[in-house]
Amino acid sequence: MNEAFKALADPTRRRILQLLRDRSMNAGEIADHFAISKPSISHHLNLLKQAGLILDERQGQNIVYTLHTTVVEDVIGWMFTMIEKKEEPS
Amino acid sequence: MNEAFKALADPTRRRILQLLRDRSMNAGEIADHFAISKPSISHHLNLLKQAGLILDERQGQNIVYTLHTTVVEDVIGWMFTMIEKKEEPS
Repeated sequence: MNEAFKALADPTRRRILQLLRDRSMNAGEIADHFAISKPSISHHLNLLKQAGLILDERQGQNIVYTLHTTVVEDVIGWMFTMIEKKEEPS
Repeated sequence: MNEAFKALADPTRRRILQLLRDRSMNAGEIADHFAISKPSISHHLNLLKQAGLILDERQGQNIVYTLHTTVVEDVIGWMFTMIEKKEEPS
């Protein structure tokens, strides 16, 4: 959970996740959406992978990155407990 | 949003939020739940406050901390867009 929140605390990494919610992409396709260097994008992808927020899979010459929705759902589930228990019986 | 995720990337701060979902507390009451020093707790409370996740309010001699559910809901809302758009029409 720590790693997931750390990974989410960066706007570039959040934008990468938003790109991957639409479809899986390789590093080159992801990098095309940013004005920063490919090594920087690789670094962000590694942090997202370490946090479990994305999965990588080799497809031929490419490594394709996919959003790991299970971990995103875990984070949402944890956040929800924050507001659920806050409700008081009327 | 960056500050909120950074603040959430620490287990002590997440525990503080969990304490505050049940009721508002002052720093002393919060510190009673932890084996770490009161200055450390104050530091964590400041980071949570800067991130907008908690609100502080003076009540007589005490400053009372309350969960800021609006910001928690914003974070959940953002996380939800991750998995919502992932769904494809059948």
